[in-house]
Amino acid sequence: MGKQLRAQLIGATGYGGLGILELLLGHPHFEVTSAVARDDVGKRIAEVYPHLTGRTDLVVQSADDVGVGANCDVVIFATPDRVSQGYARALADAGVRFIDYSGDFRFPTPARYAAYADRHPSISDSAHQADDLMPRAVYGVPELFRDRNAEAAIVGNPGCFAVGIILGLTPLFADGLVEDGAVAVDGLTGSSGAGKKPAPLQHFSHLNDNTVPYRVLTHQHVIEVEQTLADLANGSAGGPVRVDFVPHLLPVTRGILSTMHVNLTKTVSAASLLERYREFYSGHPFVRILDTPPTLKGPLGSNYCDISIVTSADQRRAVVMSSIDNLMKGQSGVAMQNINLMFGLEETAGLDRTPVYP
Amino acid sequence: MGKQLRAQLIGATGYGGLGILELLLGHPHFEVTSAVARDDVGKRIAEVYPHLTGRTDLVVQSADDVGVGANCDVVIFATPDRVSQGYARALADAGVRFIDYSGDFRFPTPARYAAYADRHPSISDSAHQADDLMPRAVYGVPELFRDRNAEAAIVGNPGCFAVGIILGLTPLFADGLVEDGAVAVDGLTGSSGAGKKPAPLQHFSHLNDNTVPYRVLTHQHVIEVEQTLADLANGSAGGPVRVDFVPHLLPVTRGILSTMHVNLTKTVSAASLLERYREFYSGHPFVRILDTPPTLKGPLGSNYCDISIVTSADQRRAVVMSSIDNLMKGQSGVAMQNINLMFGLEETAGLDRTPVYP
Amino acid sequence: MGKQLRAQLIGATGYGGLGILELLLGHPHFEVTSAVARDDVGKRIAEVYPHLTGRTDLVVQSADDVGVGANCDVVIFATPDRVSQGYARALADAGVRFIDYSGDFRFPTPARYAAYADRHPSISDSAHQADDLMPRAVYGVPELFRDRNAEAAIVGNPGCFAVGIILGLTPLFADGLVEDGAVAVDGLTGSSGAGKKPAPLQHFSHLNDNTVPYRVLTHQHVIEVEQTLADLANGSAGGPVRVDFVPHLLPVTRGILSTMHVNLTKTVSAASLLERYREFYSGHPFVRILDTPPTLKGPLGSNYCDISIVTSADQRRAVVMSSIDNLMKGQSGVAMQNINLMFGLEETAGLDRTPVYP
Amino acid sequence: MGKQLRAQLIGATGYGGLGILELLLGHPHFEVTSAVARDDVGKRIAEVYPHLTGRTDLVVQSADDVGVGANCDVVIFATPDRVSQGYARALADAGVRFIDYSGDFRFPTPARYAAYADRHPSISDSAHQADDLMPRAVYGVPELFRDRNAEAAIVGNPGCFAVGIILGLTPLFADGLVEDGAVAVDGLTGSSGAGKKPAPLQHFSHLNDNTVPYRVLTHQHVIEVEQTLADLANGSAGGPVRVDFVPHLLPVTRGILSTMHVNLTKTVSAASLLERYREFYSGHPFVRILDTPPTLKGPLGSNYCDISIVTSADQRRAVVMSSIDNLMKGQSGVAMQNINLMFGLEETAGLDRTPVYP
Repeated sequence: MGKQLRAQLIGATGYGGLGILELLLGHPHFEVTSAVARDDVGKRIAEVYPHLTGRTDLVVQSADDVGVGANCDVVIFATPDRVSQGYARALADAGVRFIDYSGDFRFPTPARYAAYADRHPSISDSAHQADDLMPRAVYGVPELFRDRNAEAAIVGNPGCFAVGIILGLTPLFADGLVEDGAVAVDGLTGSSGAGKKPAPLQHFSHLNDNTVPYRVLTHQHVIEVEQTLADLANGSAGGPVRVDFVPHLLPVTRGILSTMHVNLTKTVSAASLLERYREFYSGHPFVRILDTPPTLKGPLGSNYCDISIVTSADQRRAVVMSSIDNLMKGQSGVAMQNINLMFGLEETAGLDRTPVYP
Repeated sequence: MGKQLRAQLIGATGYGGLGILELLLGHPHFEVTSAVARDDVGKRIAEVYPHLTGRTDLVVQSADDVGVGANCDVVIFATPDRVSQGYARALADAGVRFIDYSGDFRFPTPARYAAYADRHPSISDSAHQADDLMPRAVYGVPELFRDRNAEAAIVGNPGCFAVGIILGLTPLFADGLVEDGAVAVDGLTGSSGAGKKPAPLQHFSHLNDNTVPYRVLTHQHVIEVEQTLADLANGSAGGPVRVDFVPHLLPVTRGILSTMHVNLTKTVSAASLLERYREFYSGHPFVRILDTPPTLKGPLGSNYCDISIVTSADQRRAVVMSSIDNLMKGQSGVAMQNINLMFGLEETAGLDRTPVYP
Repeated sequence: MGKQLRAQLIGATGYGGLGILELLLGHPHFEVTSAVARDDVGKRIAEVYPHLTGRTDLVVQSADDVGVGANCDVVIFATPDRVSQGYARALADAGVRFIDYSGDFRFPTPARYAAYADRHPSISDSAHQADDLMPRAVYGVPELFRDRNAEAAIVGNPGCFAVGIILGLTPLFADGLVEDGAVAVDGLTGSSGAGKKPAPLQHFSHLNDNTVPYRVLTHQHVIEVEQTLADLANGSAGGPVRVDFVPHLLPVTRGILSTMHVNLTKTVSAASLLERYREFYSGHPFVRILDTPPTLKGPLGSNYCDISIVTSADQRRAVVMSSIDNLMKGQSGVAMQNINLMFGLEETAGLDRTPVYP
Repeated sequence: MGKQLRAQLIGATGYGGLGILELLLGHPHFEVTSAVARDDVGKRIAEVYPHLTGRTDLVVQSADDVGVGANCDVVIFATPDRVSQGYARALADAGVRFIDYSGDFRFPTPARYAAYADRHPSISDSAHQADDLMPRAVYGVPELFRDRNAEAAIVGNPGCFAVGIILGLTPLFADGLVEDGAVAVDGLTGSSGAGKKPAPLQHFSHLNDNTVPYRVLTHQHVIEVEQTLADLANGSAGGPVRVDFVPHLLPVTRGILSTMHVNLTKTVSAASLLERYREFYSGHPFVRILDTPPTLKGPLGSNYCDISIVTSADQRRAVVMSSIDNLMKGQSGVAMQNINLMFGLEETAGLDRTPVYP
């Protein structure tokens, strides 16, 4: 069919914009009709990112000049919280579908969003500008909700930590295997999740050879994890879900490895859990269940989520480990997957990539 | 008093031997009378480790040539499991005290040692050669047992992971605050813990940008942690202690950061826990209680163990984080501290080092 | 036309074999009919390299079982020196074309090969087994010799350092601009060039935070550089070419950055040199001439060679910098490019990859 | 004699201030009477740098509050260019000696300083405020000029790159061995040379796995190198000295490795050069001449400069390699050495440190 679909990219010069731009450049059906950003307007993207020399002639434009929603089938907001909600109503009125990388449209109700906003370091004190559109949005974890994408006016792309934790825990919660709905999670993340802007925590001299726990038990991504798992658990383990989450910043550029500890509601072997996971994710091309622990680098550069499980000797506790590339399955890859599903394309279109190793 | 004490170093050319050699070279009271190893016999240590050029003229000797226990006040076995136990009886008979880096003398009874040996990747099928000497050995975590060192014929230097976890959890267990005695621990370690020998897991092309969980729920260091904490908990939380431990190999050279999740037996604030920890470790020069999470690099190059604690919003769960340099407080530093205590010296002699940053 | 061409891969489980396997899996016209190696025979490649899980079902076979040259249009030797030369005559007799990663077929005459073999750490004392086939081989730097590939029975894939240095210096030598034919080159390389086998120099604890000069002024890749440039310079600068080369091992996995210093035979501006380079490499899709210095990471994961030039204030000396991914343009990428040219395919087939950043 | 000397530290919260503070804390004769900075006034240094917890109770003070030059025997300016020159006259009038980390007092005449200032990215357009004091300053490379320190009112601490290059080349220039006075140098530096302030080039996501050439042939440190070597060469090679220098930023925190290429004025063996270097630096405790190439990590954490030399097969060209810790011998270590010499102390006081390895 060729490149008949048109995407507009907002926030084109951050790592999130860069990631989806690269995927779209190699996509069989999408072209990028405009790349919008606040900085570097008028520059070629390949000047901002010299590794793109020879790959694209796109020039950064301002939102005012090009018009958000103009000349496209989908708008991609690779922007921080509270940007897309400002454009949402106009786009909805114009019948232009969009996907947003931030938390703006991950939640089905204002109350649920409020729990997230309260935790967020920068947005806690302001009201959502388009909360009536929340019911028209789909939470973009395709392995759980892909059937909804085709009809969705809006997709709220999930948080990077949330993707790996949700995929790692869903089969356990779906089967009511998690005692008290309680999980202890240590998340290990690369520096790129914090974006392109220089900051003390991501300063090379500080982060090299280092590892830094941060937002201990207070990270905002936990909200969407707990809500999603609680919905899943209804009727099985039931009751509230409680994810004690400690993110750790590692001296690597890409990747999130999440190690999740649960007590099981009944005795179960690792082998049977692995079998159950394989069955659960059968037909989902981007989840790989491994017999041995996943490594952080295993999915690097690809859209895969690698998962494995180990149980204690008495088979009453389990450790689930999941690994993703935070800029792919944790951000632009899952966005591409969501967009494919919105437009009835192959789920894997533009995403058929072997991980980079070594 | 000058350099009046004499140390013999066995296993001088591994990272463990290197670490204690460097500490002894700068020690006010110890000299190294011989440096023994199996490889590189006849070479100067500074040929094996060029960074020591100009620091020492010591030459590597074979055990046969020099005689283990000859001409020294203490023998330091910086050797793998099952080496020191072969020399132990002869040294005991000769009245020569020693410290051992391996698990050979960390356990007070054969039964307890057996639980460890069963887990160890390489020693599970052979009997201890000097188990009658176990009662004469002290488990070398000075913050718990330093009073015993002065009389000890043998000190069993603790496992690198064990040091950080035990110091992080001891006040909680001592106060009976850990529900069910259950802890979930994710340990993050640098590559140097695996020693100097090239191996696939520590191959740069594999480990760089990577993180690898290994021995999930089966690491042998957990045994000494569980036994030590169970002894502490007697009369308080009581019952068995259960540490679910997942070590992760990180792309850093040095350091162990342990993140420990517990449910509390009663409501307690982080502030009061921090206060309790400061009181508990008052008078212990190498434990630093921090108000914010420790970083992996914080203690690098020093003998410090940095600890901090965060509690959940409802104050019913706590996360304890501890950080050490695995080659210092996790190995040669704690060994030097143990040796100082064995000989009635200042606990900090030769260990007054500021961490390296940035 | 579909996957109508068949490749046999020898040395399938090293990094060189892995690299070309990944390119062939994504190639529009080639399929891999057998993957041969000495180790791991009988294992699926995806067991050896878990990141390939779900990407291929290929199983490692032994050379004896499958027969080198059987059932294929091209044999790819991703093997060390002196392997392909043992099979060369049989393949030539059978009319099977092949490409070799080692130095076996990079040289047109035994005398030239001898200069290389004398320098090589492991092969200096043995005779070439098929030197009569040397005239039938093409040295595989496509930007210089691509017209010859179509007729070549054999392609000698170039050394990783050689690619970047030759591409960086060729326009200068072609124009007779290099005084005395003398160049000082510092090469900075990632660890993966040394392959998959653990070794002290590539041990993470040694290489992390480190940089190690090695084979100073004696590296074997210089031979093919000097010979190629001397051939180019005939009639211009003429006389011998002398490349003083110091390779440095860096704590990165991939990439070679070469910094080359020359005195110019006449005054010339950087701007005019950049223009000349752009003209010279016009029509060569994998050479990018940049206005600012290339970075090591710029071409990572792609087949690009990035080049830039700076001149001294008096315009009498120049510094040329080139950057490649050593496993792509320095090895499997240039091999794929060479194979495409051997079979009359698009030079870029299977190589249309955006570099990975950040 | 105890801690009878008093140092005042200006610029206490940057990496340069941190480095000298740590050395002074462990120094047998110096105490720090005040620590001045513009940021973080009122905070304990250990809050700014948590790794100093338990090491010092010093509080950051403002220059206005404490008075520059008050209550001290020496002022240490660990500050950017153009700070110390503003205080210089007042200090000179008060008879307070000082050392400065910047280029303010590295040059004996305004003309020589101007050549430096023209190159400096930020200071080229403003006049020196105290150029009449230049003759009272000593250029602080103790291996060349230590006899002058005892009388110096001012020491201009050298540039980090300059130290390693000057020490590496001085014996060759002193012996008139460098043809045309021409050297091509590639410098490889860690990120910490750029200081504590976050910036795009030192952003972890950008620098990790990367290497970036910068200020190619225009770095300001070359000026002091060329001037120093030209002074040395008078009467031997004579004429101008020309150092073509390309700095490269590496993904390591500490260290500078400089690789220097020269043509020799006569045939000379590497062995005789090594012998000459050993003789030349005999009696200089911080220069180590190695038989094999130095590594970047070799001197890490110490004040050593490691040097080795290789010659071409025809013994007409040489490659000299030098390695230093840029924050020690390249900054605070050489400053401490200079201060010791200013006050007639042991040159090694407070600097007796074994490098950190692995």
